[in-house]
Amino acid sequence: MGDIGRRSFLGYSLAGGAVALAAPADTAKTEAPPPPVTRLLARYAVGGQFADIPAAVRREAARTLLNWVGCAIGGSQNETVPIAISALAPFFGPAQATILGRKERADILHAALINGISSHVLDFDDTHMATAIHPAASVVPAILALSEHIPVSGRDFLNAMVLGIEVECRLGAAVHPAHYDIGWHITGTTGVFGAAAAAGRLLKLSEQQMVWALGLAAAQPVGLREMFGSMTKSFHPGRAAQNGLTAALLASKNYTSSGQGIEAKSGWANVVSTQHDYKDIQTKLGKSYLLSENSYKPFASGLVVHPVIDGCIQLRNEYKLKADQIAKIDLRVHRLVLELTDKKSPQTGLESKFSVYHAAAVGITEGAGGEAQFSDRAARAPETVALRGKVTATLDASLKGDQARVVILLQDGRRLEKFVEHALGSVRNPMSDRALETKFLGLADGVLPVARAKQVMEHCWNAANLKEAGAIAKTAAG
Amino acid sequence: MGDIGRRSFLGYSLAGGAVALAAPADTAKTEAPPPPVTRLLARYAVGGQFADIPAAVRREAARTLLNWVGCAIGGSQNETVPIAISALAPFFGPAQATILGRKERADILHAALINGISSHVLDFDDTHMATAIHPAASVVPAILALSEHIPVSGRDFLNAMVLGIEVECRLGAAVHPAHYDIGWHITGTTGVFGAAAAAGRLLKLSEQQMVWALGLAAAQPVGLREMFGSMTKSFHPGRAAQNGLTAALLASKNYTSSGQGIEAKSGWANVVSTQHDYKDIQTKLGKSYLLSENSYKPFASGLVVHPVIDGCIQLRNEYKLKADQIAKIDLRVHRLVLELTDKKSPQTGLESKFSVYHAAAVGITEGAGGEAQFSDRAARAPETVALRGKVTATLDASLKGDQARVVILLQDGRRLEKFVEHALGSVRNPMSDRALETKFLGLADGVLPVARAKQVMEHCWNAANLKEAGAIAKTAAG
Repeated sequence: MGDIGRRSFLGYSLAGGAVALAAPADTAKTEAPPPPVTRLLARYAVGGQFADIPAAVRREAARTLLNWVGCAIGGSQNETVPIAISALAPFFGPAQATILGRKERADILHAALINGISSHVLDFDDTHMATAIHPAASVVPAILALSEHIPVSGRDFLNAMVLGIEVECRLGAAVHPAHYDIGWHITGTTGVFGAAAAAGRLLKLSEQQMVWALGLAAAQPVGLREMFGSMTKSFHPGRAAQNGLTAALLASKNYTSSGQGIEAKSGWANVVSTQHDYKDIQTKLGKSYLLSENSYKPFASGLVVHPVIDGCIQLRNEYKLKADQIAKIDLRVHRLVLELTDKKSPQTGLESKFSVYHAAAVGITEGAGGEAQFSDRAARAPETVALRGKVTATLDASLKGDQARVVILLQDGRRLEKFVEHALGSVRNPMSDRALETKFLGLADGVLPVARAKQVMEHCWNAANLKEAGAIAKTAAG
Repeated sequence: MGDIGRRSFLGYSLAGGAVALAAPADTAKTEAPPPPVTRLLARYAVGGQFADIPAAVRREAARTLLNWVGCAIGGSQNETVPIAISALAPFFGPAQATILGRKERADILHAALINGISSHVLDFDDTHMATAIHPAASVVPAILALSEHIPVSGRDFLNAMVLGIEVECRLGAAVHPAHYDIGWHITGTTGVFGAAAAAGRLLKLSEQQMVWALGLAAAQPVGLREMFGSMTKSFHPGRAAQNGLTAALLASKNYTSSGQGIEAKSGWANVVSTQHDYKDIQTKLGKSYLLSENSYKPFASGLVVHPVIDGCIQLRNEYKLKADQIAKIDLRVHRLVLELTDKKSPQTGLESKFSVYHAAAVGITEGAGGEAQFSDRAARAPETVALRGKVTATLDASLKGDQARVVILLQDGRRLEKFVEHALGSVRNPMSDRALETKFLGLADGVLPVARAKQVMEHCWNAANLKEAGAIAKTAAG
């Protein structure tokens, strides 16, 4: 069928008619058919066993869960969250699920949305670096809410979480980087599949139902990179969680979809990307785990300035530095640091995240790089403002992205230097369990009592043994 | 910023960090900036006045509304609808809005979803032929549900409906046909904008809030052509209605989004299409109306066989034909008829929609082409089965898409012929108001008592004078 035929039939639309079912353009081609990607992923999602997941991957799942819950608790206080709640609460269903860090409860679909927003709004959640996906952001809110509605053991929860993240990241890897370069926010566009797969597993979908769930997920991608810097960015993983959960629920009642929602000619991969490579989906599911490559941010800023913060905090701690001892801070940095964070005098917390000068200064004055150090308060703190005027940053083309060189000249003439080879939180230098706990407690500070925050952490570390996974959410209520 | 830099920062993701706010790739370019499409559409949606809409366009809006409501009532009995309800009812909020043709009620977001599904599931709704959009399918369910939640006059309702459809169709026209050719189901991908604009108007959004609502819409397109032939096809406009309504509700509480969600480099138009032309959006909003080009299907099948059905019904009526008088039916048809509907022995109602032989036969045996004529019952009716064995169809390259030539040879030797120049329901030969009413009553048959069906029709014709637009939905409850 020619181009004209495909789009209009001499005044008639073909789109509306069921006639488009049999598209001759497809059948006329002699290309090899694509592998059955949707079915392979569905089969893995319904069949993968917890017993087959290596201990190290299970441990990474617990770390990912802990980090995600902390981010959701901390993010729950951001103005974005009460705005979303106030807009949608009149339409909430029964109070089935917890909104983490808050008193409000919602039906599981809205809880998935709101918790997804909370967990991503601080840009502090986990990252699968090779695909730029935040793996937990859509998967965990979908199944955590579901676990308050139907009985789910901690073991089943973790299994579904791992399977969902693998489906999400394998699919992301299959279309990255072309998909991301087009302008899609891959966390939302693949998150809907991860949420559908994980929720579908807990709903005990058959393989055919899971195929439909993935098809329903394919039809509702969420997220444009254009939205970065607005509240809609965090809406993406939240809505993806809600969409994926909806897809699984519909499929559980045999709401049908395509059998090849991902790989068909007019399926997801061809529509949202210009390239794809299904090899790993065909050969690696259940054999290796992309979750193993997950990473966690130690600092509440863009990743590009993490080496600088890391180096400044290290020098501060080694030499017990005070701001008034310092004459000058010379930074040698990767190209992108100057391209993206050359803001000399940030006036707000958000702006301060785009200032390598602020990042260096606050690393010295406060010895940390959490949300508190990128707040309006911190951006205007006189000692930090004064110190950042003494910071210079110079391109060093020999540096890699997770590297920086920090040189501090003291008033007494001493010269201190730190080369950061792999910034804390990068793949080569991951955050320790202890560091994750410290981050968690910082995020929960002022939201939950310390004792309860510690109980939530304990639930996360011990998730595989929980009788009811929903306890994680219930304990994290504000 | 180079390709590597855009997608990964030597092991660091840039996607997660707010760093992507300032994308140097954009600022380095010297291309002329795109026109402010999002703002132009927002300004039109918040400012367009009912008094400025020509009477003929208002009348077309009423026809569109009537046709949509009939389709939703008829579609409400399709199995797709109770399946969706059974999956999602446990999460419904307060019973704020009617599900047309049914006893169940739902919160307005779920009502928008379900009514959108009902209205499209029969593939019998309105079509804007030049863009392949079904204009009402997402816009009307969003604002009809909203009109049961807040007070909305019929006049405001019709105004919002027209504005929403214009936003939707102008945006569709700006990216058609490239967008559709990629594989997107344009009804869902543009419907979310139409629903957001119309709902946002009724929520009295400011221009800035409307910009955000359109940005939130841009981030959640729905619909792949791969889903045609499954229940997910009708999910598309339903979900688009729900997404657009959600976008407007969030924006009404100042949930922020991009200011250039449509036209930015990583905005909607560049991400979901390879081409766009904003000229008409810049010059024609409020000056001409794409709603004027809306059309309505007289027959419940793919549009390609409409000329054949039309011709057969005309001959039947002119000559009072009975099936047993007929020796042979020879059809001359457009190429696509054979490509898409060459099914000789359909066994089910759905299959019969792909059979030009069935379409011709049932036009004679039943003198109609509604849902009843493309049902399982009709596909197996002995008289129709026997007659379709006497039908042949031959390509005639001289025919246009809305044309067919029907030749009937009778047992008594007579030869009857009808050339259909413009099939009923095509742009050149629109359905009359009376024909729309007959279609409506056919769809409502068995769902609503006749007196109430007529009352619903009266509300639609008289919509501009209704005190409460919600009365349309309430009267159409099952």
